[in-house]
Amino acid sequence: MSTMRAARFYGNRDIRVEDVPVPEAGPGECVVEVEWCGICGSDLHEYAAGPVLMSTVDAKTGDPKPLTLGHEFCGRLKSVPEGSKLKVGQAVMVDPHCICRQCLCCTSGNDQMCQKLAFLGGHNERGGGLSEFVAVEEAHCLPLPDTVSLESAAVIEPLVVCHHAAKVAGVNLKGLDVLILGGGPVGSALISILRAHEVGRIFLSEPTAKRKEQNKEVVDRVIDPRSEKVGDVCRELTGGKGVDVVFDCAGVQPGLEAGFDALKHSGTYVNVAVWEKPIQIQFLMFFFKEINIRSSCCYNEEDFKEVMELMSKGAFKGYERMVTSRISLEDTQSKGFEELINNKDDQIKILISPKVK
Amino acid sequence: MSTMRAARFYGNRDIRVEDVPVPEAGPGECVVEVEWCGICGSDLHEYAAGPVLMSTVDAKTGDPKPLTLGHEFCGRLKSVPEGSKLKVGQAVMVDPHCICRQCLCCTSGNDQMCQKLAFLGGHNERGGGLSEFVAVEEAHCLPLPDTVSLESAAVIEPLVVCHHAAKVAGVNLKGLDVLILGGGPVGSALISILRAHEVGRIFLSEPTAKRKEQNKEVVDRVIDPRSEKVGDVCRELTGGKGVDVVFDCAGVQPGLEAGFDALKHSGTYVNVAVWEKPIQIQFLMFFFKEINIRSSCCYNEEDFKEVMELMSKGAFKGYERMVTSRISLEDTQSKGFEELINNKDDQIKILISPKVK
Repeated sequence: MSTMRAARFYGNRDIRVEDVPVPEAGPGECVVEVEWCGICGSDLHEYAAGPVLMSTVDAKTGDPKPLTLGHEFCGRLKSVPEGSKLKVGQAVMVDPHCICRQCLCCTSGNDQMCQKLAFLGGHNERGGGLSEFVAVEEAHCLPLPDTVSLESAAVIEPLVVCHHAAKVAGVNLKGLDVLILGGGPVGSALISILRAHEVGRIFLSEPTAKRKEQNKEVVDRVIDPRSEKVGDVCRELTGGKGVDVVFDCAGVQPGLEAGFDALKHSGTYVNVAVWEKPIQIQFLMFFFKEINIRSSCCYNEEDFKEVMELMSKGAFKGYERMVTSRISLEDTQSKGFEELINNKDDQIKILISPKVK
Repeated sequence: MSTMRAARFYGNRDIRVEDVPVPEAGPGECVVEVEWCGICGSDLHEYAAGPVLMSTVDAKTGDPKPLTLGHEFCGRLKSVPEGSKLKVGQAVMVDPHCICRQCLCCTSGNDQMCQKLAFLGGHNERGGGLSEFVAVEEAHCLPLPDTVSLESAAVIEPLVVCHHAAKVAGVNLKGLDVLILGGGPVGSALISILRAHEVGRIFLSEPTAKRKEQNKEVVDRVIDPRSEKVGDVCRELTGGKGVDVVFDCAGVQPGLEAGFDALKHSGTYVNVAVWEKPIQIQFLMFFFKEINIRSSCCYNEEDFKEVMELMSKGAFKGYERMVTSRISLEDTQSKGFEELINNKDDQIKILISPKVK
């Protein structure tokens, strides 16, 4: 049996790069040779504060059951099923979400909420992109347009997350004033998405220097929530009205409260973040402003295809600016996950490749 | 100066019926001779747990500044402005919300969120309906249709609250399965409103005997949250899907959690209740179900007119069933507010009249 290198999650702050068997393609599957894989905030969350949703021990025996992480990945096809339109060697982005196609959500076009929702790189049986090879169902291997290189394709996944969130907002975003809470990878991807939706102005609440710097050219105003009152600044910029929509890409209580304060009456707050604690809603502001609160969960197949289509038309300018570091698979823990914890003010998105030595 | 009797709120569990001056009509105002006035949950909240939003002391001097309570009232016109289309002696329902007509909300048809929003019976300067006479702006004196008696008109106000909430839900309710949390006055009024909207089935979660009994004929299923799991019952009744919309007329944490559990994916939760504590949202269910959370705040002028129009067409069957007791103004505290606290399982809506001796 041939082996490959894979970064496996054993538990809290414990990732080991080890030899594991190369996966074999099941019926209707391709094998993807990974080129680049991003570290997602949810991976980092599991690593630093978890395991929460991922299980790293065998439920029956209690033995370690490590997971090969990574769901934001692209690569080239090493094998394709017989009769496929796809070609060996073709560059693809992987839609990593695994769905049953049978539940009420899947059959109503809401497969982002599939009752068996899982992710490549997020559960045991199927490894993720922090490895050399991954077996992926054919329908989720999406050919890259000629205009998109494998160098930057891995960050398509956060764009899809944000594309879904923009749809979940449930309003026509064109011309609206929007506040984004948090200028990390998701906030950064969201800016590209919102520009494609032709929003009016984008205000970004972000306290750290690197993320302010990274985004200041592409938003209309960066607000530092440590030295400015976000609601006051937003009202001042909108003739007293407040912003139309808030996208929360931070997931912390003071952010939500600043966002509610900044919203206009009947405005919409969309959560795109993963929260570590229950969300608290102060009653009076929620009540008297008739705030609409919406939750955006991942993305569905349609979202992924729409973003690929938009990419092919060059709709997202500068989306790859979020990449702040590129490292080898062997350095996944030290220069990847630990770096994001220890130098989070300096890093936004770290990409990892098994091909970098 | 002529005087009248009025029930005045001095502070926590302290209402005194006293002589006060009869109000004089200002420009463009009518004087309404009160026939019936209901006790609202928000009045009771101020009485039992407050004062919260109402102030009963003079901000400058600290002297007592009692309020004449009551905003759910109807009566006959004692005087009308010169040239008015209204007639002395005419039966009217009062729209008690006071608005500035100048702020961004008022000028955009959202006067329920007027930046100076106040209520007759909710602030000092203008007394409420727990008295013999109230001065009311002409535009807010709404003639009763012939088909509606003054006996039952006071409960129009809770119907308007619910009419607004049904609009705030933001979905076409026709044919949908709805869960109501709480069968008190608001839940009860909501049933009438939802029937007028031709919803599919209505399920009511209510623990107390009287409220279950009162509503069991008009809903499709009463669920007792003390002995049944609300979410399980709702899923069972909907082929596993869950309800389309939840209206929260209870405002307590276990209710919200049962409601979220009972909702289908992408379902809508509408808050119609006044909460005493901050609302807690457990992240995972909110996130993975993409729940839409909406807040309904009071009502606007249009809502009130629409309900009066619907009343005249006989759209609300049995809405007056919520009235469980009728008492005299002199008994406001003992047989009204205290009764609602001490025998809340037996009472839903208590109406008070200065004409009952």
